Amino acid sequence: MSYKTKVSRNENITKLQAGYLFPEIARRKNAHLLKFPDAKIISLGIGDTTEPIPEVITSAMAKKSYALSTLEGYSGYGAEQGEKPLRSAIVSTYYKDLGIDDDDIFVSDGAKCDISRLQVVFGSNVKMAVQDPSYPAYVDSSVIMGQTGFYQKDVQKFANIEYMKCKPENGFFPDLSSISRPDIIFFCSPNNPTGAAATREQLTQLVQFAKDNGSIIVYDSAYAMYISGDNPRSIFEIPGAKEVALETASFSKYAGFTGVRLGWTVIPKQLLFSDGFPVAKDFNRIVSTCFNGASNISQAGGLACLSPEGLKAMRDVIGFYKENTDIIVETFDSLGFKVYGGENAPYVWVYFPGRSSWDVFGEILEKTHVVTTPGSGFGPAGEGFIRVSAFGHRENVLEACRRFKQLYK
Amino acid sequence: MSYKTKVSRNENITKLQAGYLFPEIARRKNAHLLKFPDAKIISLGIGDTTEPIPEVITSAMAKKSYALSTLEGYSGYGAEQGEKPLRSAIVSTYYKDLGIDDDDIFVSDGAKCDISRLQVVFGSNVKMAVQDPSYPAYVDSSVIMGQTGFYQKDVQKFANIEYMKCKPENGFFPDLSSISRPDIIFFCSPNNPTGAAATREQLTQLVQFAKDNGSIIVYDSAYAMYISGDNPRSIFEIPGAKEVALETASFSKYAGFTGVRLGWTVIPKQLLFSDGFPVAKDFNRIVSTCFNGASNISQAGGLACLSPEGLKAMRDVIGFYKENTDIIVETFDSLGFKVYGGENAPYVWVYFPGRSSWDVFGEILEKTHVVTTPGSGFGPAGEGFIRVSAFGHRENVLEACRRFKQLYK
Repeated sequence: MSYKTKVSRNENITKLQAGYLFPEIARRKNAHLLKFPDAKIISLGIGDTTEPIPEVITSAMAKKSYALSTLEGYSGYGAEQGEKPLRSAIVSTYYKDLGIDDDDIFVSDGAKCDISRLQVVFGSNVKMAVQDPSYPAYVDSSVIMGQTGFYQKDVQKFANIEYMKCKPENGFFPDLSSISRPDIIFFCSPNNPTGAAATREQLTQLVQFAKDNGSIIVYDSAYAMYISGDNPRSIFEIPGAKEVALETASFSKYAGFTGVRLGWTVIPKQLLFSDGFPVAKDFNRIVSTCFNGASNISQAGGLACLSPEGLKAMRDVIGFYKENTDIIVETFDSLGFKVYGGENAPYVWVYFPGRSSWDVFGEILEKTHVVTTPGSGFGPAGEGFIRVSAFGHRENVLEACRRFKQLYK
Repeated sequence: MSYKTKVSRNENITKLQAGYLFPEIARRKNAHLLKFPDAKIISLGIGDTTEPIPEVITSAMAKKSYALSTLEGYSGYGAEQGEKPLRSAIVSTYYKDLGIDDDDIFVSDGAKCDISRLQVVFGSNVKMAVQDPSYPAYVDSSVIMGQTGFYQKDVQKFANIEYMKCKPENGFFPDLSSISRPDIIFFCSPNNPTGAAATREQLTQLVQFAKDNGSIIVYDSAYAMYISGDNPRSIFEIPGAKEVALETASFSKYAGFTGVRLGWTVIPKQLLFSDGFPVAKDFNRIVSTCFNGASNISQAGGLACLSPEGLKAMRDVIGFYKENTDIIVETFDSLGFKVYGGENAPYVWVYFPGRSSWDVFGEILEKTHVVTTPGSGFGPAGEGFIRVSAFGHRENVLEACRRFKQLYK
């Protein structure tokens, strides 16, 4: 018999369901590879960037690396909130004329990490609302912090979370009149996985809803640069948002920084808890105690991203992925599927009426060796959908689409 | 009147005292600079590395940066647990013949970050014990997770934490017979701030204490490579430790990675919660949900650190800081102070009997423009001590010591 400590397992963690979505998909992909060792697998699943990082950015990181070997260029602990020039560049690039200051910006090692740190700030006594479907880290981090009850298998929801249904029927924007008061509203636009970007009118409604309820919006704008049209790129374009919203963002999908790790969170000093204490001050405390700042090399890369040449290079990469998106949209369109997303996001949301997402995921993997993501992994309202990611080399996207056409012709 | 949301502030965060220690010191240093704008301040405070990173390491990071601009060299999301070759190299460098496997290793962006993630794993229903004095992140992260009661001003302790007194009288090793059963024992050796490295006999006692109580030891070995003598470098050198301990470590103080950000945590698969569930599995879930892995560039640097040339270069840097330590120890020794630490750690722990640490900190700053760290910032048993860090350029350490000699001659 093995020795066991007397420390109880954290009950909140026991509430989590199976694996976190993407490791679960990786597991199924590996099982498939065991069955078909020669399969030429194409992954349009997890949404991992595939295109090289433009040289204007990597050469800045290489330069910073070399500089760390010199007396003048060496730096140790940086400010936990991030380096000043990067915080300034983020403001002038993304929040110009929106009344955001340099010290409202917190540089991070990615949006996912900041989402968890935000949950630590909020603690266990808040009730959250989340778009259904949405990026699973919102719900899972809420469960981990003890904000929820147990998972209810019949409805595929955790107790004490408001799931805000986003379906084609409501234009992927929730019916806010049906939502009971949440403390925290996670809202991702353009949405992962549906690809829907909220309009100015919708976001105005959302801000008004938060104001009426005294709620805080955690606005995830990680895909904002993929927006083609006129929809807001930041929640702070909406008047009054600074009093009810914070925003988290990332270089991952703009510059291919999924492995380099860099993002940021904006917390306006106007955002206050019920006792008048600024949310930013508590976040600052958590960042100082639980984090030591993003890598100084990654931050040098981020600064290069926001130079004129870097911005152009990022837009070129984004343009490339958007062409992929068009190819995927056209493919499913031509096969007679209802297809959503794509226009303002690197994700295509394909409808398979009456079918289980995991079944469709399995069918596509089995028959075409293409990895997608089952919509139900993003929430119960994702059931019947598949998310196809546009992150891929062109020849892989074309080949995947050829295989889709064969399977569903 | 400003608008306030209706979201209550997290009560656990309100329990924290003043600023986190090091930002607080930075604040006092800045106030000093306002008063003495021309002061040539020398910082032997926070323990930030100052010497350039050896080129064998930075050139590997530069190479990885450039590679990210090529099709073959590009990589996106890595395994949340870290890259395989780095995990293997960590095992063969630091845990050879100790029965630790590659998949017991979790690569991180630093020990401080992993300490917080570990606290998230443990949750709010555990009771912790901590060396007094010790690195403040242990206690603060426990408070944040809701494991403690309120701060009790009279004893300068949080309720529901066992403070294990480590003083010269007990050789800086706690009297374990006086400690009531904890779930989690944070133990740092060589200790920050006292510099004391526990002996094999002491660690054998500690492991036995954990086994008797069914406790889990979180062993922080961030300074292990500074050990001069024969004391254990890893808790896993103690038989049976794998069933009651995990270990967290860092490249920060070995390779000057305080800004680059890289560390690791070892969780043996033999370490089980009371229900038999492996601690490593829950940590894996937290790492997958709340973290996306350390920067791939930092990881390339870590791998270079563990090459034969990298190891030699790290040992040279450590040797340099150890010479600084000797200079500081000799200085305070010659001035008649009781001096501890230094031999096995980059920290010197100087005793000022009957005086308040913050007063001595203020006196030293005011009279010599040298920033130290007040011992009481590490816990009530640190009162009357000052921590002097050996991280500094040689000429600064020498100049600081000249000023100490003038002040205390």
